Amino acid sequence: MNTEEVAYLGIPGSFSHSAAQLYFMKKVTLQSQPSIESVLLQVQQEKAEFGVVPMENSSTGSIMETYDQLLNTHLIIVGEIILRIHHHLAGHAKEIKDIKRCYSHPVAFAQCDGFFKKHAVIEKMYTSDTATAAKLVSERNESHEAAITGRRATQLYDLPVISENIEDVSTNYTRFVVIGKKTNQKGNKFSLALSVKHEPGSLVRILKPLSDFGLNMTKIESRPLFGKVWEYIFFLDFESQSENTDVEKTITIMKEDVTFLTLLGRYNKGEIYES
Amino acid sequence: MNTEEVAYLGIPGSFSHSAAQLYFMKKVTLQSQPSIESVLLQVQQEKAEFGVVPMENSSTGSIMETYDQLLNTHLIIVGEIILRIHHHLAGHAKEIKDIKRCYSHPVAFAQCDGFFKKHAVIEKMYTSDTATAAKLVSERNESHEAAITGRRATQLYDLPVISENIEDVSTNYTRFVVIGKKTNQKGNKFSLALSVKHEPGSLVRILKPLSDFGLNMTKIESRPLFGKVWEYIFFLDFESQSENTDVEKTITIMKEDVTFLTLLGRYNKGEIYES
Repeated sequence: MNTEEVAYLGIPGSFSHSAAQLYFMKKVTLQSQPSIESVLLQVQQEKAEFGVVPMENSSTGSIMETYDQLLNTHLIIVGEIILRIHHHLAGHAKEIKDIKRCYSHPVAFAQCDGFFKKHAVIEKMYTSDTATAAKLVSERNESHEAAITGRRATQLYDLPVISENIEDVSTNYTRFVVIGKKTNQKGNKFSLALSVKHEPGSLVRILKPLSDFGLNMTKIESRPLFGKVWEYIFFLDFESQSENTDVEKTITIMKEDVTFLTLLGRYNKGEIYES
Repeated sequence: MNTEEVAYLGIPGSFSHSAAQLYFMKKVTLQSQPSIESVLLQVQQEKAEFGVVPMENSSTGSIMETYDQLLNTHLIIVGEIILRIHHHLAGHAKEIKDIKRCYSHPVAFAQCDGFFKKHAVIEKMYTSDTATAAKLVSERNESHEAAITGRRATQLYDLPVISENIEDVSTNYTRFVVIGKKTNQKGNKFSLALSVKHEPGSLVRILKPLSDFGLNMTKIESRPLFGKVWEYIFFLDFESQSENTDVEKTITIMKEDVTFLTLLGRYNKGEIYES
């Protein structure tokens, strides 16, 4: 590899593509991949140094596939970046009233529900993702069609923006993680996956060392395995406020009360960017 | 209302429709609704006694919109039911090799990725949901088209099943909740939403009363408000093993350490059904 290769989810113009560009500042070669699994496979097989995939969204929650793939592959999180997600109406129509058909992902339509209630004559056409919607509308080049898509995709596919920020909720954020093979020795943020015995108090015992050492928990999520009613996996993120906090010792103490614990990664808390 | 009216998410044949039928055992009139918001609005405006919506899925995580709507409306959870989700390939094609085009929701395609890798010639067409895919394929009645959809939809839209259970992971469960206006006085399961001060140890203080009273936590999830970095909402489910546990007292103790706490509902732990 001459420049570092970075695999990302989706086609050019996807939000993962934007996240990868913003994180690496163009010093890398970006590889489009069709699935989260294939992004991680590229890293696993050393065809890419890093992978960029979504981890959670403020409106739709955690991306369980990313957690699953991390648990399956033993790859680790080495960085994070947060994008504020905006949806734009873009296409070759001059005005909204000229649009007869609009392409996007079902979730993007759901997040722009207010707009489509107001413009109920527009027929919704579904695509696998928002960047593909922009690409399709650009290629079809019909004056009565539009896409709901992100800023980067409108630029890449040369699609004029007809109406900006048509999303219902202005606080829509997606957290992306950068996946690698080697554990960072530095970083103020830690992600863990663990299981405890399913009995009252077992989770409290696990969390106590974190509070004793003054570590700040920024995420906790139990993942139920419905078929196996007594089995749960917990995903935990926490931040260290000081370089001197002995995080390794904290984790060692936590391990005394778990049935399983793995460090998903150590990295620096990510910045928030507009998408 | 003669028989009780129950609103559900989606068109007939949706998984919420199946959940509503299995929960109420056909003693009610079912109302199709286009969004989670509109299901809850029907209950809010007393146009329906109950609403049935998805709350979380074992593969894709919590349905944040349901939580948001519950917090916004002050409606409450009065019941739950869990469906094991199966995806079937259905249509008028005689064999898989005759299929040129397949309709479904992007998530359903993602959950059947192995099948589509094996049958890469099949073109994917996206729909808003899996029941709509079945309806569309049934109406178009083309011999080279199929849908990925649920059992109930194949029956309702008279679509022969070509291949059963084509999902990659056999442990795909969705938890549905029944929403109503009046709080249950009985039920062994409780759902709470709460906020705590964002400082080390604050969550441990909240969870301790649960373990002291022997209550069994079955879900915990923090919801970050990315824009407001110090604000978090936690969603908690717990079960009482005995009728004698003083859950009200537990909640009163928990309230001492929260900045906000609301009971999202009391109900009986739901049964698991095949969909």
